Amino acid sequence: MEKRNLTLLTDLYQLTMMQGYYKNDTNNHEVVFDLFYRSNPSKNGYAICAGLEQAIDYIQNLNFNDADIKYLDSLNLFQKDFLEYLRGFRFTGDIYAIPEGTVVFPMEPLLRVKAPIFEAQFVETALLNIINHQSLIATKAARVVKAAEGDPVLEFGLRRAQGPDAGIYGARAAIIGGCAGTSNVLTGQMFDVPVSGTHAHSWVMSFDEEIEAFRAYAKLFPEKCILLVDTYDTLESGVPNAIKVFDEMKKEGLPMTFYGIRLDSGDLAYLSKKARAMLDAAGYKDAIISASCDLDEMLIADLKRQGAQITLWGVGTNMITSSDCPSFGGIYKLAAELHKDGEEIPKIKISDNPEKVTNPGVKKVVRVYDKATKKVTADIIALEHEQFNEEEELILYAANARWKKIKLRANSYTLRELLVPVFKAGQKVYESPNTMSIKAYAKEELDTLWEEYKRLVNPQIMQVVLSDKLYALREKMLENYKRD
Amino acid sequence: MEKRNLTLLTDLYQLTMMQGYYKNDTNNHEVVFDLFYRSNPSKNGYAICAGLEQAIDYIQNLNFNDADIKYLDSLNLFQKDFLEYLRGFRFTGDIYAIPEGTVVFPMEPLLRVKAPIFEAQFVETALLNIINHQSLIATKAARVVKAAEGDPVLEFGLRRAQGPDAGIYGARAAIIGGCAGTSNVLTGQMFDVPVSGTHAHSWVMSFDEEIEAFRAYAKLFPEKCILLVDTYDTLESGVPNAIKVFDEMKKEGLPMTFYGIRLDSGDLAYLSKKARAMLDAAGYKDAIISASCDLDEMLIADLKRQGAQITLWGVGTNMITSSDCPSFGGIYKLAAELHKDGEEIPKIKISDNPEKVTNPGVKKVVRVYDKATKKVTADIIALEHEQFNEEEELILYAANARWKKIKLRANSYTLRELLVPVFKAGQKVYESPNTMSIKAYAKEELDTLWEEYKRLVNPQIMQVVLSDKLYALREKMLENYKRD
Repeated sequence: MEKRNLTLLTDLYQLTMMQGYYKNDTNNHEVVFDLFYRSNPSKNGYAICAGLEQAIDYIQNLNFNDADIKYLDSLNLFQKDFLEYLRGFRFTGDIYAIPEGTVVFPMEPLLRVKAPIFEAQFVETALLNIINHQSLIATKAARVVKAAEGDPVLEFGLRRAQGPDAGIYGARAAIIGGCAGTSNVLTGQMFDVPVSGTHAHSWVMSFDEEIEAFRAYAKLFPEKCILLVDTYDTLESGVPNAIKVFDEMKKEGLPMTFYGIRLDSGDLAYLSKKARAMLDAAGYKDAIISASCDLDEMLIADLKRQGAQITLWGVGTNMITSSDCPSFGGIYKLAAELHKDGEEIPKIKISDNPEKVTNPGVKKVVRVYDKATKKVTADIIALEHEQFNEEEELILYAANARWKKIKLRANSYTLRELLVPVFKAGQKVYESPNTMSIKAYAKEELDTLWEEYKRLVNPQIMQVVLSDKLYALREKMLENYKRD
Repeated sequence: MEKRNLTLLTDLYQLTMMQGYYKNDTNNHEVVFDLFYRSNPSKNGYAICAGLEQAIDYIQNLNFNDADIKYLDSLNLFQKDFLEYLRGFRFTGDIYAIPEGTVVFPMEPLLRVKAPIFEAQFVETALLNIINHQSLIATKAARVVKAAEGDPVLEFGLRRAQGPDAGIYGARAAIIGGCAGTSNVLTGQMFDVPVSGTHAHSWVMSFDEEIEAFRAYAKLFPEKCILLVDTYDTLESGVPNAIKVFDEMKKEGLPMTFYGIRLDSGDLAYLSKKARAMLDAAGYKDAIISASCDLDEMLIADLKRQGAQITLWGVGTNMITSSDCPSFGGIYKLAAELHKDGEEIPKIKISDNPEKVTNPGVKKVVRVYDKATKKVTADIIALEHEQFNEEEELILYAANARWKKIKLRANSYTLRELLVPVFKAGQKVYESPNTMSIKAYAKEELDTLWEEYKRLVNPQIMQVVLSDKLYALREKMLENYKRD
């Protein structure tokens, strides 16, 4: 696929500030920004980060072309020398990121950008747009897949997605979050992921009789034959006609490895149980019953509780828009300035709201696993240079309640640093895995969480603690601020 | 801008059905599909339709290239002759549409596609994606702009939009819905709409002192100088420092035509009143007070009720995602088949849910205005060939309550057909107006509604009635269905 130039996909104020840095000759001052978020979407217990591949593409394709410069000039805001300077713009900094598909928690830097402020500031908006969107949908999909208890979930939301990209990259993110496939053909082509779909009501309506529509479909696609049975009357017409056609298929000796029905309206619990009984009685115990009707994770969980006999779920609008929580609150905040002599000046953003105070300094995220169970015990946000030793006792203090302590015995835990280098001095040093590998990795990631953290409602909250050094730095900076 | 090939932006089932039509030799059967919706988003009293320009681009750029055919072949679902046939695919039908920016109501065809079923079926998903997205955001923006009571509203949501397109086209739709500008530079470039923005907290934090940051900014952008005053302490530091800088600007004799402050946190009602008083006391009665902090139409209306002294509103996440209702329920349903002899066979989709029964036949939408006030009285969904005469009395029966009647005297009303030709025999016959013209048109459109229909909560419901002939057709078809 050809890469899009999204250079002007930014907020105007990034460019006005850049002119400011340029004019004040501070444009080359090195800074570190963190991209992180403050709370999980949908009151979930975690998020699945996603979008890094597209973020990398964006960075690599940054380029102010003639049309861009001409357009900016037309705004009567920018000076000629600044616009000329923009022509030579490229990203020269370092980016560390948590790989896509990783389970992440609030306050953890998902990306850490170290670059001249001119560049680090500029990339803020598009990075947030890309990471926010895909992390949102990957997380929502993980919830839906969880509710389906092992049944495959298909992403069907393109027609209600917020524009083409929301459909394309939303489907990618949904696959990362655990969906088995998508109806979106372009996503299938771009990311080599399974595509899925059979027919709509209009197919049935284009024939005089429902059974003719089913017969014609079965003849064409005997190996993937899911018949939509609710165009006229699900139990009186649709299911009996489907069974007749399955009988005909069997008589012809077709393989019938993937066949069944789809319900798209009505009481899915009732209809699926009745349909199951009818299919079983006719000898089609392996016929799939799929459903797709304004579903979300709560409805699926409820249908499961009611004993609905659905084995394949098509989820559209509510997943592709994350309808209960349609935005992921990723933000991008200055964490440090780096002086020429190598000195690091940590930066903190103060707020009246204590939850909005940022963590200063160049940081990393260290995940702590229980050695025996391989489950996550906690995450530590630490300063970059800090070292931890698995052969020593580790004491963790809860971030907002330092009197709460977890003491881990030496050799009872393992550690893993989550941020990996993606760009060094503007050069890409990371290869994005293909989407299906990311999906497999995300599944492994979810296996590292105890079930309590994955509950759809009221999940257990993962401990994300500050290292002693980071905590001390933050306290000192807050104390100095108070004294001013 | 280069046009994107979105040919594979579709649901797989469109292609499996197309192979079915092709194999059954029904692919050239002419059909009519309606794109319409069943209820207004956000419980609003109307919607603003948008996205037609991009829908037209999509249709014009449809083209299965070698890579597309190769990909489809790799799915092992499609036969070679069908794939070869796809290579020659182009849209050859007619499309009628309601122009962008028009006020529309549930059940009205926003697009009417007449084409061979092979083509009409294929374009469903992308048309819905595009029209659903932009109509959603245009409608949401109209609500936000309404709440601002004449103050300009700026679209600031790119970083939280659901991917790049949601930001780009969402901002376009927000402008159509009434926003004065957007922070999104790419949207500004692509659609020649005003872009806006000054600086962020990081600008202030990159200086040792807040006042230095303000001074540097004012020096660079004296003609558009909105200073963000909440980085440290709005009333103790931000506003006093802004006033000092305004004093310096005045002393230097700068024009000061567009200057002021921005609040981005805290109690906006309280802070804006205090800031207003401080600015006024310093002689800056025309200084703008802008605000941007998780706003939506309800919060803005509430701030207005509290007497907040905000005169410019920046609205991000909640508008760009339409957070309370993040999808627009546009659907695409078969309305008729056209036989070779010219006979029209109306089609109806039956549902257990009476609200989901479709309106059969080839239809048009006739808007009825009161001649004296020029306000909309009602809309009529009628059959295409029906004629109405303004010189005759007009009797309208409420759609779901035929006993409710509106009688309009001859010459007391005027009529307007909303659907206009966009494609004829595959040729584009419509020029999209530029975005700012659509915005101006949408404003005129909103002026044709009484205030009661524009209330944010519990609006009056516009009467959308069926013509007698359409009503009779529908009843007859339902009656025939019942007898089967």
